[in-house]
Amino acid sequence: MNGSYLVVVIAILAVLGCTFGASTHWSYECRKNRCERIELLNEKTAISLPVCRIFCGEHPGTLWPRVNGKVKVEGKMARLIPTEVQFNLINQTKRNDLFWRTNEQRLREQILAKVPNYVKLKNDDSGAHLMIMLDVKNEDAKLGLDTDEGYHMHGYENTGVVIIKVKAETIFGARHAIETISQLIVFDDIRRELQVVGEFEIEDKPVFPHRGFLLDTSRNYFTVDSIKRTIDAMAMVKLNVFHWHMTDSQSFPLVLKSHPDLSEIGAYAPDKVYTINDIIKIYEYAYVRGVLLLPEFDAPAHVGEGWQQKNVTACFNAQPWAKYCVEPPCGQLDPTKDNLYDILEDIYREMYDAFRKPDIFHMGGDEVSHSCWNSSKEIQDWMLQKGWGLKESDFMKLWGHFQDNALERLDKVIGKKVPIIMWTSHLTDVPYVEQYLDKQRYIIQIWTTGADPKVTDLLKKGYKLILSNYDGLYLDCGFGAWVTEGNNWCSPYIGWEKVYKNNFTHFGSKYKSQFYGAEAALWSEQTDHHTLDGRIWPRLSALAERLWSDPSDHWRSAEPRMLIHRERLVDNGIAAESLQPQWCLQHEGECPIN
Amino acid sequence: MNGSYLVVVIAILAVLGCTFGASTHWSYECRKNRCERIELLNEKTAISLPVCRIFCGEHPGTLWPRVNGKVKVEGKMARLIPTEVQFNLINQTKRNDLFWRTNEQRLREQILAKVPNYVKLKNDDSGAHLMIMLDVKNEDAKLGLDTDEGYHMHGYENTGVVIIKVKAETIFGARHAIETISQLIVFDDIRRELQVVGEFEIEDKPVFPHRGFLLDTSRNYFTVDSIKRTIDAMAMVKLNVFHWHMTDSQSFPLVLKSHPDLSEIGAYAPDKVYTINDIIKIYEYAYVRGVLLLPEFDAPAHVGEGWQQKNVTACFNAQPWAKYCVEPPCGQLDPTKDNLYDILEDIYREMYDAFRKPDIFHMGGDEVSHSCWNSSKEIQDWMLQKGWGLKESDFMKLWGHFQDNALERLDKVIGKKVPIIMWTSHLTDVPYVEQYLDKQRYIIQIWTTGADPKVTDLLKKGYKLILSNYDGLYLDCGFGAWVTEGNNWCSPYIGWEKVYKNNFTHFGSKYKSQFYGAEAALWSEQTDHHTLDGRIWPRLSALAERLWSDPSDHWRSAEPRMLIHRERLVDNGIAAESLQPQWCLQHEGECPIN
Repeated sequence: MNGSYLVVVIAILAVLGCTFGASTHWSYECRKNRCERIELLNEKTAISLPVCRIFCGEHPGTLWPRVNGKVKVEGKMARLIPTEVQFNLINQTKRNDLFWRTNEQRLREQILAKVPNYVKLKNDDSGAHLMIMLDVKNEDAKLGLDTDEGYHMHGYENTGVVIIKVKAETIFGARHAIETISQLIVFDDIRRELQVVGEFEIEDKPVFPHRGFLLDTSRNYFTVDSIKRTIDAMAMVKLNVFHWHMTDSQSFPLVLKSHPDLSEIGAYAPDKVYTINDIIKIYEYAYVRGVLLLPEFDAPAHVGEGWQQKNVTACFNAQPWAKYCVEPPCGQLDPTKDNLYDILEDIYREMYDAFRKPDIFHMGGDEVSHSCWNSSKEIQDWMLQKGWGLKESDFMKLWGHFQDNALERLDKVIGKKVPIIMWTSHLTDVPYVEQYLDKQRYIIQIWTTGADPKVTDLLKKGYKLILSNYDGLYLDCGFGAWVTEGNNWCSPYIGWEKVYKNNFTHFGSKYKSQFYGAEAALWSEQTDHHTLDGRIWPRLSALAERLWSDPSDHWRSAEPRMLIHRERLVDNGIAAESLQPQWCLQHEGECPIN
Repeated sequence: MNGSYLVVVIAILAVLGCTFGASTHWSYECRKNRCERIELLNEKTAISLPVCRIFCGEHPGTLWPRVNGKVKVEGKMARLIPTEVQFNLINQTKRNDLFWRTNEQRLREQILAKVPNYVKLKNDDSGAHLMIMLDVKNEDAKLGLDTDEGYHMHGYENTGVVIIKVKAETIFGARHAIETISQLIVFDDIRRELQVVGEFEIEDKPVFPHRGFLLDTSRNYFTVDSIKRTIDAMAMVKLNVFHWHMTDSQSFPLVLKSHPDLSEIGAYAPDKVYTINDIIKIYEYAYVRGVLLLPEFDAPAHVGEGWQQKNVTACFNAQPWAKYCVEPPCGQLDPTKDNLYDILEDIYREMYDAFRKPDIFHMGGDEVSHSCWNSSKEIQDWMLQKGWGLKESDFMKLWGHFQDNALERLDKVIGKKVPIIMWTSHLTDVPYVEQYLDKQRYIIQIWTTGADPKVTDLLKKGYKLILSNYDGLYLDCGFGAWVTEGNNWCSPYIGWEKVYKNNFTHFGSKYKSQFYGAEAALWSEQTDHHTLDGRIWPRLSALAERLWSDPSDHWRSAEPRMLIHRERLVDNGIAAESLQPQWCLQHEGECPIN
C-alpha cells in the first residue's frame, strides 16, 4: 500500500464520521508487501490488520479463495452500517426468491459475525449503506459440470452508499460474487466498526468446474445439522459439490419407502437415519448456496448391514475379515441374484428423486473382492453353469455383468444417460477399463496416490477424471489405527500446505483439461459429527483455492490469508482447527522458517 | 454372565413393572466373556448392550476407569425413576453444601444424558428410587498429593429403593464413588428405560495421587467455558489435577491488578484474558469436582509478549528466532535485573491468591537458551563484572541465580516451603540438578521420551517425578507442521492405545513409588477452544485408567469399555473423537485384528 492510498483510507473514514476508542495497542503498516505490527500511537492514522492486509501485497489478503482474474482494490474503506445492506435484482423475474432472500440474509449474518463479542456497535446512522445490484443473464441455469460460475463486479462509493454492480451469467456466479463481497467487509478493531472496501473491480471465475467434498455417513453417522453447517462453510470458499457417500457395509442410514428394512435393520439407531425428506431439505439448502448434492450408491462391494433379509449378498461379516475385505464387516452384493437388480432400481429411483433428479450419479465400484464372491458356492455354481471359469478374468466378467445390469436399471430410472462417476479399482485398470467402462459415459474418480502410473494410463486413454488421491486429499489420515495399534493406514496427517500443493501440474499440462476437478474425502471410521468441523476445516479451503484459482505460488504466500480465513470460519460457527498460535496471525510472516 | 444371573435380570425387570416397545432389532448375549449381538426375538428376555457389558467378563464394561480393588456386581438391574435420586449425608455437618448439591445435580444430569433424544421416558412411578448414603470420615481434607481418594460402596435393592452406602475417608473419595455410580446406571434401548445395577459392592482407590492434564492457554486462547467443560470431563474419569500453563512468550492472558500492562499489551484481544475472578470461579468449579487447579508460571524462558514495557527481558522476538529459541517469538527474563524479582513476587502473589493458596506450585523452567542471554551485552557485562566467564557453566550459574531468587520470592509470598514442580531441562541434568535443585523441595516433571536415560538418572538420585513423556502424553503431536511443511515435531499422532500402554514398568518396579503420577499435555500452538474436546478426549481417559488402576492388561481388553465410555463423553456434551465405526461398539471384539 503506498502513501497516497493511506491518505485516502483516512480521508474516507473521516468523511463518514469515525469515532474512536481503540481496544487494541496495535496498528499495522505495509512494509515490503507485509503487514507489520507497530505500536498504536495515533488513532486517527492507525490501520487495522485486515485493512492493511486488503491493500498490502498482490492479492487482497482477506479473500479466500483468491480471485482468478482481474482484481483492483483502491485504498479506500467506508464505514458500513450493517443493518443497511440490500440486494437489488436487475432484469430478473424473481422466480428465485428463496435463493436471493437466503443469500441476502446470509451476507448480513456473515457481516455481523465479524464483530467480536466484546464489542457493541454504535447505533447511529453515520456510515455507508451497501447496495448490491445483481444482474444475472440466465436465471434458469442448473448446477453442474457446464455451469458458468464466473462473475464481474465493480464497487464504488457515492454519497453515503457503497454500490456494487454484479454481472454474472448465472445465479451461481452472482452468488460467488456475494461471498467475495462479504470478504471485502472487515471489522476495524481500532475504530470498533465495520468497514467495506470503497472502490474495487473484480473479475473472477473458477479454473475447475468440479470442486468437491465427500462425506461418508455410513461408518459413523452425521446429523443433518452438521451436514448443513458443512455446506455453509463450503459455500464460503466456493466449493460446489457435496458428494454424499451415504451407505456402506457398516450401516445403512437411508430410509426408503420401497425397502424400509434396509434402514430398520441397518441404521445404527432409530435417530441415526436420513429420510427422503431430510435429503430434499439438504438438497434445497445446498442449492441456494451453490452446492450440488451428488448421490453415491456404492456397489457391488461396501454393502452389508441392512441387507440381512434380502438374500442378495455374499461374505457378509465373514471371518477373518481381512481375508475377504479391507475392513470389517465384509459384504458384497451377489451379482447372480436376479431380484438384486429390482432392489437396486428401487434404491436408485428413491435416491434420484430425493436428490432432485441430478444430471450425474456416482455408482461407487471400489474394493471389490474376488475372494468374497469366490467364497459363495452359489456364485461359483452360477459362473460354472455359464461356462465361465473361476479365474480373475472370470470374476472381472462377473463384475462387468453387475455393472451393466445396475447401470441399465439406473438409466431406466433416470430416463436418459447421465455421466456416471466410479472409483478407481481393478475395473479401471488396463485392459478392463476399456472392456467394461465406456469413456464417453464414465468419469473416473482417482483415489490412489497422485503419482500412480494408472492415472496416466487413464489420461492417455482419454478418460475424464476427478482427483481424490489419498496422499493429498484424504482428510481422515494420520490418526490412531483402529483395527490394530499404531497409526491409521494412510498416515501421516495431511497438513493444509500439502492439500494446497496437491496440484495437477505433474500430470502434464496437456492433460489438465481431462480433470473436471477434485474432491477431498472424509471417510468416517474415526469421525462423526462431533469432530467433523475440525477434521475438514480449514484444510478443505486449501483445496478450494487449488480448484478455483489453481495458483502457481508457494503456500507460504497464501499463509497469511489462510490464517485470516480460519478466523472467519470460526466466527461463522465452524469449529475449524487452529493452524498456528494467534501470534502468527498478528505477526505476518514471522513464524515460518524460510 | 451365567444363566442364573440372566433369570434374575429378567425377574427384577418384571417385578419393577417393565413395559415394552423396543426401538432396536438387536439383543446381546454373553458368550466367552464377549457380548455378541443377536436378533431380538423375545423382548421379555432380551438383554441390552450396556446391561450385557456390565455382567459379561471380568470388569463391569461400563466403568472407566475400571475399579482398582474389589468389585462384585450381581446380575440384577432395577428400573430407575430418574427424578427420584437423592443424597443422604451421614454424620456430616453439611459445611460442604455446595459440594454435595453440585454433585447431586451433576449425577442427575449425567443420568438424563443417557436417554437418547428420540426417546421420551414414560412419566410413571413404576420403578426404583435411588438413595445414596454418604458417610465421610474427614470432611476437611484438602486436595493434594496426600489426599485419600478411596471409597467403599455397597448397593442393594429394598422395596422399590436401590440404596447405595458409600464410605470414604474424604469428600473427594465419596465424589469418586458417585462417578462410579453414574456409570452403573444405563439406558436400556429394548425397554426404553433407565436401569441401575441392583446389587453390588465396590472397593476402589487410585494407584497414583497425581493424575493430571496440562492446558497451555498462551499459544492460543481457551474460553473459561471450555476450561470448565474440560474439568467436567476430567471429573468423569477421576483425573484430579488441572495444570494451567497460563502464560508464555506468545501471549499473556492473565489480568493482574499489580501489572495490568502485562495483559493489556500481551493478551491476543481484549476478551482473550483471564481475570483473577475467572480463576477463582474455575478453582471453585474444579474443587467441587475433585480437581486441583495447579498454577504454573513458566520462567525464565517462555516469556515475551506483554513484557514490552518492563525492560526485564532478553532476546524478545529476536531474529532469526531459531538461533535463540525453539519457536517464535523468543524471549527470556533477564536474571540480572533486580526489579524483575519484585515483578515476579507480585505475579506469584496474585496467582497464589487466585488459585486459593495451593500447597504446590509449578515454576516451569524449561527450554532456557544460553544464546539468548548471551546476545545481551548487559547480561554479559553483569556476568563478567561478577568475575564469571561466558561458558555454559556460567550461564547455568546465572540460571541458578534466577531460580534461587525467584523461589525466595515465591516462598515469601506463600509463607512456607511448598513442593515446587519444574520441567526437565538442562538444569535437571547431572551434575546441575543436585547443584541447583534440592530433591526435598523439587518435583521434576519429565517431558523427554519415556526411554530417556536422564529419567533413570533422576530416579537413582532419589528425585520424585511426574511423567509427561512427549512420546506418550503430548496430545498435540501428529498434525501439520506450522513453522515449516510436513508434520509437527513430535509426530506421529498418539493413539489412545499408546497412551494406555505408556506405563511405569520399564523404569523398574523399585522406582514406581518415586512417581507421583503423570500428566498428559496439550500445548496449544495448533488448538484453541474450538477443537479442544476432540484433541484430548477420549485419549485423556486412557491416561486416567493408567493412573487410577495401572492395569497390566492389554489395551485390547479395555477397548470395548473405551468405546462405551466415548459415547458417554459425547452424551455429556464433550465432543470427543470417534475411535472406530459405531459398528465396532455394537460388535464387541470383531474389529481389531488379533
